[in-house]
Amino acid sequence: MELISENRSFGGSQKVFKHPSNTCGCEMTFAAYLPPQVEFGPVPVLWYLSGLSCTHENAMTKAGFQEHAAKHGLAVIFPDTSPRGAGVSDDESYDLGQGAGFYVNATRDPWKSHYRMYDYIVNELRSVVMSNLPVQDRHGITGHSMGGLGAITIAIRNADLFESLSAFAPIAHPTQSDWGRKQFSAYLGDDESTWAEYDATLLLQEHGWKGDLLVDQGSQDQFLDLLKPEALADMMARRRQPGQVRIQDGYDHSYFFVNSFAGDHVAWHAGRLN
Amino acid sequence: MELISENRSFGGSQKVFKHPSNTCGCEMTFAAYLPPQVEFGPVPVLWYLSGLSCTHENAMTKAGFQEHAAKHGLAVIFPDTSPRGAGVSDDESYDLGQGAGFYVNATRDPWKSHYRMYDYIVNELRSVVMSNLPVQDRHGITGHSMGGLGAITIAIRNADLFESLSAFAPIAHPTQSDWGRKQFSAYLGDDESTWAEYDATLLLQEHGWKGDLLVDQGSQDQFLDLLKPEALADMMARRRQPGQVRIQDGYDHSYFFVNSFAGDHVAWHAGRLN
Repeated sequence: MELISENRSFGGSQKVFKHPSNTCGCEMTFAAYLPPQVEFGPVPVLWYLSGLSCTHENAMTKAGFQEHAAKHGLAVIFPDTSPRGAGVSDDESYDLGQGAGFYVNATRDPWKSHYRMYDYIVNELRSVVMSNLPVQDRHGITGHSMGGLGAITIAIRNADLFESLSAFAPIAHPTQSDWGRKQFSAYLGDDESTWAEYDATLLLQEHGWKGDLLVDQGSQDQFLDLLKPEALADMMARRRQPGQVRIQDGYDHSYFFVNSFAGDHVAWHAGRLN
Repeated sequence: MELISENRSFGGSQKVFKHPSNTCGCEMTFAAYLPPQVEFGPVPVLWYLSGLSCTHENAMTKAGFQEHAAKHGLAVIFPDTSPRGAGVSDDESYDLGQGAGFYVNATRDPWKSHYRMYDYIVNELRSVVMSNLPVQDRHGITGHSMGGLGAITIAIRNADLFESLSAFAPIAHPTQSDWGRKQFSAYLGDDESTWAEYDATLLLQEHGWKGDLLVDQGSQDQFLDLLKPEALADMMARRRQPGQVRIQDGYDHSYFFVNSFAGDHVAWHAGRLN
């Protein structure tokens, strides 16, 4: 992998790398924050999956994780949200194609040759990170919106690989939302039974999560109808899933919301990883 | 003035406004963070002046001031860096014209009709803020790079209006730098005696600053030759100016640097404003 940029941040280092991805069939970019504690040995990893239209860069520059990661001694990985490039299929809408991988393995043309973000995160990028950065094999995962969906689905389906889980305004029930049905139809086809393994609420219903789960959701989020936090809150209560859904008064869907609660989430993960 | 956007942030509100500016002869945009404490009454104001090529938005989204302003109960104002618009003279280079007002009152054509950022900040925008937002008439000022220069020059020349002063990697001695000589020639003309009132080191030499001064400067800043922190540090020592220039090991000129020390600067101002 190749180092693209490096900036000192809160005593640690904010780096950006690119690497050839076999899984996605293109070059992929990701950002990694390494806290000052790496000087003394490997640190646990917090994965932050971003939302629709984002790259590795948005949360790296706007979400304010570095301050808290430096305090608690966690590395933070910011992957991209889809395969990229001229040879990668795309769609003119912001919510399908590049920038909108939905953390699934596509099975339909024209998407299936590159759109394998589930495998990319769980296997390939995880391996790249473990092999090249000073990190322990202890992982937490969080994300925002589409990335909150990715965090919950990836953690529940790989409970052996992740110790801690949280989400910011996740797309909670995509099989019943226009943020989900459109994309799953395209990426996975019309057999809705194949969609369930990418739906946070359905996975929670089926498997639960081995630990406790922290979800923050702004009460003034402009996308509440698409996110459907009530489906996840209902399922957590029905299933007696340890954890909490916090409705944060007045907050919207922006990075100002994520930034405001980044400290709580990093502390949550640090308490379960350290 | 017109509200353009509003986002809940750390229990307060990050707002963006536009207003017609008589001083600049165009519409101007600025951002204002109001901390949760405004619910109980007016709060002091911290002004953050941005650097070359920035708008009101860069620091608002990347510098992380909101968290600290909310903790200490300060409003933060993020002005734009120049007049804007189709009718406003510009230059093809990034460091002259739009995005590069240098916080001076231009006296030469074609700049003098719009480029009056000194008066805009000190008089017009200050008045707009005081009249429209729940703030006290207690002000601190800081800024980054060109904005650090603006903060130091504006504070020293208006010591009755500002109680506290700091800067991040300021252009310290513009009359002896290519970040300064080019712009002052264009905006002010070739009589260099007119430049001194916009040079931080020369103003400090002449007047000092009534309080103590905090300056942070990254040791790996890619623009050290243009910023000339040694001129300011030398003058502070010669003049026995209370304060400190901190050379921060490994930091560059980016917002990752500003973000890393935003907490220290907000606390510094809060200690002198509250």
